[in-house]
Amino acid sequence: MGRNTKHKPHKKRHYALPTPGSSPGLIYIDENSLKPKITLYTYNQQTYKVEELHNLNGIKARTDNKDFNFWIEVKGFNSVEMFETLAKELHINKLILEDITRTYQRPKFEEYDDYIFSISRMLCLDTDGALENEQVSFILTKNALFTFQDRYEDCLDPVRKRLDLGKGNIRIGGSSYLMYALMDMIVDNYFSVLGVWSEELDSIEDRLLDKPDKTIMYDTQMIKRNLITLRRVAWPERDKMNDILRTDSQFIDGQIKMYFRDAYDHCIQIIDMVESMKEIAASNIDMYLSIISNRMNEIMKVLTIISSIFIPLTFIAGIYGMNFSREDPVTGKVMPLNMPELYSAHGYVWALVIMAVIAILQIIYFWRKGWFK
Amino acid sequence: MGRNTKHKPHKKRHYALPTPGSSPGLIYIDENSLKPKITLYTYNQQTYKVEELHNLNGIKARTDNKDFNFWIEVKGFNSVEMFETLAKELHINKLILEDITRTYQRPKFEEYDDYIFSISRMLCLDTDGALENEQVSFILTKNALFTFQDRYEDCLDPVRKRLDLGKGNIRIGGSSYLMYALMDMIVDNYFSVLGVWSEELDSIEDRLLDKPDKTIMYDTQMIKRNLITLRRVAWPERDKMNDILRTDSQFIDGQIKMYFRDAYDHCIQIIDMVESMKEIAASNIDMYLSIISNRMNEIMKVLTIISSIFIPLTFIAGIYGMNFSREDPVTGKVMPLNMPELYSAHGYVWALVIMAVIAILQIIYFWRKGWFK
Amino acid sequence: MGRNTKHKPHKKRHYALPTPGSSPGLIYIDENSLKPKITLYTYNQQTYKVEELHNLNGIKARTDNKDFNFWIEVKGFNSVEMFETLAKELHINKLILEDITRTYQRPKFEEYDDYIFSISRMLCLDTDGALENEQVSFILTKNALFTFQDRYEDCLDPVRKRLDLGKGNIRIGGSSYLMYALMDMIVDNYFSVLGVWSEELDSIEDRLLDKPDKTIMYDTQMIKRNLITLRRVAWPERDKMNDILRTDSQFIDGQIKMYFRDAYDHCIQIIDMVESMKEIAASNIDMYLSIISNRMNEIMKVLTIISSIFIPLTFIAGIYGMNFSREDPVTGKVMPLNMPELYSAHGYVWALVIMAVIAILQIIYFWRKGWFK
Amino acid sequence: MGRNTKHKPHKKRHYALPTPGSSPGLIYIDENSLKPKITLYTYNQQTYKVEELHNLNGIKARTDNKDFNFWIEVKGFNSVEMFETLAKELHINKLILEDITRTYQRPKFEEYDDYIFSISRMLCLDTDGALENEQVSFILTKNALFTFQDRYEDCLDPVRKRLDLGKGNIRIGGSSYLMYALMDMIVDNYFSVLGVWSEELDSIEDRLLDKPDKTIMYDTQMIKRNLITLRRVAWPERDKMNDILRTDSQFIDGQIKMYFRDAYDHCIQIIDMVESMKEIAASNIDMYLSIISNRMNEIMKVLTIISSIFIPLTFIAGIYGMNFSREDPVTGKVMPLNMPELYSAHGYVWALVIMAVIAILQIIYFWRKGWFK
Amino acid sequence: MGRNTKHKPHKKRHYALPTPGSSPGLIYIDENSLKPKITLYTYNQQTYKVEELHNLNGIKARTDNKDFNFWIEVKGFNSVEMFETLAKELHINKLILEDITRTYQRPKFEEYDDYIFSISRMLCLDTDGALENEQVSFILTKNALFTFQDRYEDCLDPVRKRLDLGKGNIRIGGSSYLMYALMDMIVDNYFSVLGVWSEELDSIEDRLLDKPDKTIMYDTQMIKRNLITLRRVAWPERDKMNDILRTDSQFIDGQIKMYFRDAYDHCIQIIDMVESMKEIAASNIDMYLSIISNRMNEIMKVLTIISSIFIPLTFIAGIYGMNFSREDPVTGKVMPLNMPELYSAHGYVWALVIMAVIAILQIIYFWRKGWFK
Repeated sequence: MGRNTKHKPHKKRHYALPTPGSSPGLIYIDENSLKPKITLYTYNQQTYKVEELHNLNGIKARTDNKDFNFWIEVKGFNSVEMFETLAKELHINKLILEDITRTYQRPKFEEYDDYIFSISRMLCLDTDGALENEQVSFILTKNALFTFQDRYEDCLDPVRKRLDLGKGNIRIGGSSYLMYALMDMIVDNYFSVLGVWSEELDSIEDRLLDKPDKTIMYDTQMIKRNLITLRRVAWPERDKMNDILRTDSQFIDGQIKMYFRDAYDHCIQIIDMVESMKEIAASNIDMYLSIISNRMNEIMKVLTIISSIFIPLTFIAGIYGMNFSREDPVTGKVMPLNMPELYSAHGYVWALVIMAVIAILQIIYFWRKGWFK
Repeated sequence: MGRNTKHKPHKKRHYALPTPGSSPGLIYIDENSLKPKITLYTYNQQTYKVEELHNLNGIKARTDNKDFNFWIEVKGFNSVEMFETLAKELHINKLILEDITRTYQRPKFEEYDDYIFSISRMLCLDTDGALENEQVSFILTKNALFTFQDRYEDCLDPVRKRLDLGKGNIRIGGSSYLMYALMDMIVDNYFSVLGVWSEELDSIEDRLLDKPDKTIMYDTQMIKRNLITLRRVAWPERDKMNDILRTDSQFIDGQIKMYFRDAYDHCIQIIDMVESMKEIAASNIDMYLSIISNRMNEIMKVLTIISSIFIPLTFIAGIYGMNFSREDPVTGKVMPLNMPELYSAHGYVWALVIMAVIAILQIIYFWRKGWFK
Repeated sequence: MGRNTKHKPHKKRHYALPTPGSSPGLIYIDENSLKPKITLYTYNQQTYKVEELHNLNGIKARTDNKDFNFWIEVKGFNSVEMFETLAKELHINKLILEDITRTYQRPKFEEYDDYIFSISRMLCLDTDGALENEQVSFILTKNALFTFQDRYEDCLDPVRKRLDLGKGNIRIGGSSYLMYALMDMIVDNYFSVLGVWSEELDSIEDRLLDKPDKTIMYDTQMIKRNLITLRRVAWPERDKMNDILRTDSQFIDGQIKMYFRDAYDHCIQIIDMVESMKEIAASNIDMYLSIISNRMNEIMKVLTIISSIFIPLTFIAGIYGMNFSREDPVTGKVMPLNMPELYSAHGYVWALVIMAVIAILQIIYFWRKGWFK
Repeated sequence: MGRNTKHKPHKKRHYALPTPGSSPGLIYIDENSLKPKITLYTYNQQTYKVEELHNLNGIKARTDNKDFNFWIEVKGFNSVEMFETLAKELHINKLILEDITRTYQRPKFEEYDDYIFSISRMLCLDTDGALENEQVSFILTKNALFTFQDRYEDCLDPVRKRLDLGKGNIRIGGSSYLMYALMDMIVDNYFSVLGVWSEELDSIEDRLLDKPDKTIMYDTQMIKRNLITLRRVAWPERDKMNDILRTDSQFIDGQIKMYFRDAYDHCIQIIDMVESMKEIAASNIDMYLSIISNRMNEIMKVLTIISSIFIPLTFIAGIYGMNFSREDPVTGKVMPLNMPELYSAHGYVWALVIMAVIAILQIIYFWRKGWFK
Repeated sequence: MGRNTKHKPHKKRHYALPTPGSSPGLIYIDENSLKPKITLYTYNQQTYKVEELHNLNGIKARTDNKDFNFWIEVKGFNSVEMFETLAKELHINKLILEDITRTYQRPKFEEYDDYIFSISRMLCLDTDGALENEQVSFILTKNALFTFQDRYEDCLDPVRKRLDLGKGNIRIGGSSYLMYALMDMIVDNYFSVLGVWSEELDSIEDRLLDKPDKTIMYDTQMIKRNLITLRRVAWPERDKMNDILRTDSQFIDGQIKMYFRDAYDHCIQIIDMVESMKEIAASNIDMYLSIISNRMNEIMKVLTIISSIFIPLTFIAGIYGMNFSREDPVTGKVMPLNMPELYSAHGYVWALVIMAVIAILQIIYFWRKGWFK
């Protein structure tokens, strides 16, 4: 049984659904939310500094320095005060805070006068191969980028490393380039996830051709569901990228759009690959079902051949096992019609010959029908 | 057998269909309509008052006071006079009254000079888990909101409570905000309903993996139908929200649109979840059908193995149960060709050995075919 | 067997197809066309008069009187002269006459300088429950409405009655309102038809759950086909209503459009219901097929349990029915290896015990596999 | 076995595919092309003349006479010179000549400065009922119409006859009307083809209900494929008609468009009918598959009932056929436990009674399960 | 077993996926990349020269000569320097170099100020019939065309030959015509590939009708997947052609667009053919599955007929093989109820007659059910 069968897939399906009746714009802190870890990256082409912050007090003043770009990374939502500080300092709309904290949002891109708000969904496979689907929210101002996620681990280390090394455009492209780099990193990760599933599909197909068993159906269905989840993320992600391409917001540098165009193409490739893998999965299932049917045919053929050959023979043997009496027990008179074959010198031989002939005729019949192939 | 199997689902399918040939714009009072209960909520930031009204006479004059906002809640349609009063006082089009009273309308949004008319569909699960699909109609004027429903129970209590407590924007956002709050409440309730079905799907999947039985098909189909009903409600609801977002009617406060945008996003999420649950349901059905097929294969394998092994053996036993006579009963001459095996010292042992060999060969054959796995 | 099974559905499928190569614009009189019955309704708010006409000569002059509205109802097409008179008097395009007489047109709406041309399709169930699909054509001038149908019976009596009684707007809304009333009547009738099918679907579902038999497939497929026919009518009907809503023709009174908007909503509801019933039909078929599969499993289980238990036992009985001889018939020497069990004092009892043990073991095995549930 | 089963359908699937790497605009003469037969029809309202031409030399000069309309009909493509003459005289683009001679084009409509180019696909059933799919190309100048097809037979005779008789608009509508008449004739022929298939579907359905056999699947699939081919022709044909309706080319007389509008409606009806027939075909296949399943169930029921009843009885008979000895052959002592039933006076009767009881119980069991219905 | 079954199809599925976290615009050299082979074609109407280049140094200066057109063909990517030279000399954007070297791009068309960038996908079947899916990238400047592919073999030889011979427009149409010729060549090759699959589908269908075996499912699924791959290439290819048709870039000669229009039509035909072949494949699969079902029915019929006939007969034989004793062994008294048939003169004959009657009745029963047909 494949790796996927050990854990129930729907354990991942629970969302932080809205509590019906709550006031809109309410900051929602899930009981499992993590304690916030805030990291401030201050950088320009020459310098690069990383600090841990305890709260966001005074963040507006700090990021007002136009000589630097800032990345304020917030991991863990378990502090209503933090969000309230943020709202107060940067004049963030409360509905946005709700969107950040209720982590079941679709990817989207919204422009406001003072900032840009965007959501990406980060997909990773955990160590069991189960799909994790985390929300990363972005607030972009002129020279600062805020990111929010309610988990400590993520797949963004390569970007941090590039930021540290200062390779490429990462430190000179401004905050919108950093946002692009992070979003692109997240989308690139979809490729890794697809790569893993693609290999699983290949291995399922190998099993299908070698020794198909019951787990094929289950494992394929699980991959299909995962693909559906990914597609549900990739479509709005593509729309988001398109929205970014078409915006004329001051916060997205015009020269950066070329890069978002590239990310947009990646989204389309993701969708393409998902569709193609879904078709491969469906084709595997079709093959599996036809293998089951063929196997059933084969089982039935064995049963039918053996039964058809031996049942008539057994009947003949049964005939000559009957005890009809040759002599009337009262008068002792011979009753010549009662099973005379039994008293013929070659009766047994003839019986065997007739049985053999019947068996051979049947074998020829089944052979012609092609049942032995 | 699951909870859903006890009641027939189609009992919920009956609509108050139009009586062919009736004059358009006719107020339609179903024979099961309830006696109207009219509640008037008068509120502003400071005050909040709830009154029961007996009829709508003079409602125009009462709601003309611009210092307050009004919510006139009508539950139960069994009074033609009430609707006629309403039509006369507020100059409501008769076709709208028909739409209110014939409760099979799709969600929609229509602008008129003096008011706005809108329809939502309220979905709840009753105590048996059956889906109830009620119509709530809204008429919004400058500072008054009329709501109409032909049932006493609903899912709007949290909004009434917020109105009572005066928390958030509910008392200061004006009548269009109240309409938003009620509509959003209704949409939020879709999430609760989906949550219940999602859990049912999970439990069906658990049964599927543990001990699949016939009810799986039925229960899954029932959820699928419910999902189809919900989708049929959610799509026009989304269109309605979009119409509200795009309207430039004076009755919808511009600042409130941001909230409707949020409700619009919720509708899209609902549709997303419905699609995803439909795919999960379909995938469960596929798995169930392949389990049936596999089980059939297994049954047939047992039958084939046992029959194939014992039928030939029984035939051999039958052979040596034949009564071919060793001696000619007339002449008494020995007929040596008649079943000489029976008179051999090791005949029985050899017969048993041959039977065992045949059985073992067959077992090896089936083993190799993988039928014992 | 359901009601639908008695008559072949395709008997309704024949259309009056175009004769290839005929000149376009040719009036086509089917050999089964009925003798025309022409009825002239002359009415205004005060008066209402019904006359039978023998032909349409002078119809232009009669309907020029602006004090009245006219409805000229033509039932039966078997008169080329009638159509030629019509064409000459009202300057009707020949292609329109062809459309009227070839009754396989889709619903449509066409504007011309002097009149409006429109087609509806009237659906009724005949006494056998078979769907009848008739064409009703409309020509609307300023104050006269011509309707054409090649059948005497129709479903428009309620409108005639309202016209007679003068209730509502029917006599004061002008000819375009009358056209609306007739079209709406026709669309309302779709609801009745759907209602009948909905009940049939319910009864099929009841049979499905109680005692599923072969007719379920057939009956459901017949309803599905009828639904497809209805959908094929409802979609262009919706488009037609939309065309009417968007026209700025002088013949459609602006105030009447609100009513057509209502009819448009009805069409959408029809389409919604059709889609939903199609899904219910498909779900019934899926359930039926899984019931067949389950039943097959059950049959096979019975066969396998009985065969598996008794075949080995029969084999054992066969063993001890063999006739291996205890004594060499020639020498009279005892051959102790030949079936010593037969001569043991408890041989029979042991044989029965062994058989019982085998049977019990198998029953336990099948019990564990859950085959008795 | 149906008519369709005798010939392989894919024999019709071969196209004159482009030779990869050939220069674009190359006139392609298939090796099977026919020798060209050129017919010149010269006509106006009064006159009508038909001539056979040997080549197209001087065709420009001949068709310059504005007093007449001309139809130059080219059947058979086996002459590169003919096409080159055409190109030179009328300044036809080489890519168009390639489109004319490579007869696998989709229906299309292209405007040029000096002429209009259009393609229709002519569908006929050959004598075996196989679908023939020929290309007819049109070049329309001010008063001349050129048609090209690589086959001598076609379905256009009714138009030639109307041209000969001068009935209707055919001689007075100009060359664009003639083009319409030919195109409409071709589309009308689709209805004939659909009519044949519709009857075949009906007869398949009759067989399905009377005595379903294996050919139903094959025959239905063949019709389904033919429908797909027809749909693939009808959609671009519809688009072509739409292009013609929207063009403002001088070569299409404005008054003729009304007729093209009619042809456009026909295309939509064709598509409608194709979709509906596809659904009927699918529904037939579904019913056929459920009939196979039901038949399997029935077969298994017979097997199970007979086996279940007789196998236990045979076992009992086997028991009393065992040869356990009543007396110890050595000591001669009676062994009373060995098969005492055999020596009871009513042993045989009791055995028969027990067998009968078992059989009756089983019959009752199967009766209750409803297996005898 | 078909040709396709020998190699696993997914071996072709691996893409050069982006390495998550790499800097965008990075030239990516796969470890399997080939050593670059650079060929420079210099040509105008009179002259034609082919040279091998070692690198691209000075390529800008060489291609500045407006008297000639240039085709610089780069095969093999294993040189970062080459790409950097290119970028420096022609000011190519780094993201484009990334697109060229990461060969999993979709067909696309992008305009820049100094050049045009486009991607085609070249499909060929290798000697095993497996589909190869290579990327060819184009950079077009005013009078030079650069092409890039990471393989030495391709399907472009016919174009090279036409260039050598100077036939048609190839040397006079400018660089954009050459680009068209290459792209059209690539698209034409899709037809060849489809032709091969079409023949395979035909041969599968022949096998299906002659002797259907298990490989049919697999082979058909493989073709279906290949078709899906081709469709995934053809759709963006069509979009690309459309983009080229709509561009107003100076690099695409206006007169050349007519040719691209032709290539666009080819793409649509490809898509049409793919859809049609997919439907044929699906129809083959449906037929195959119904053949399996029918075969199962046939197998079961054989089993049921033989079992049903012989099991009851064997039972009767078993009855008269029972050993109920005629005489009480103790008293020697005759027990007349114990199997009197055995001692009747015609007992055996009657037994045989009864058996024959039962068998004949059953045969008649099965005959009537149509099981022998």
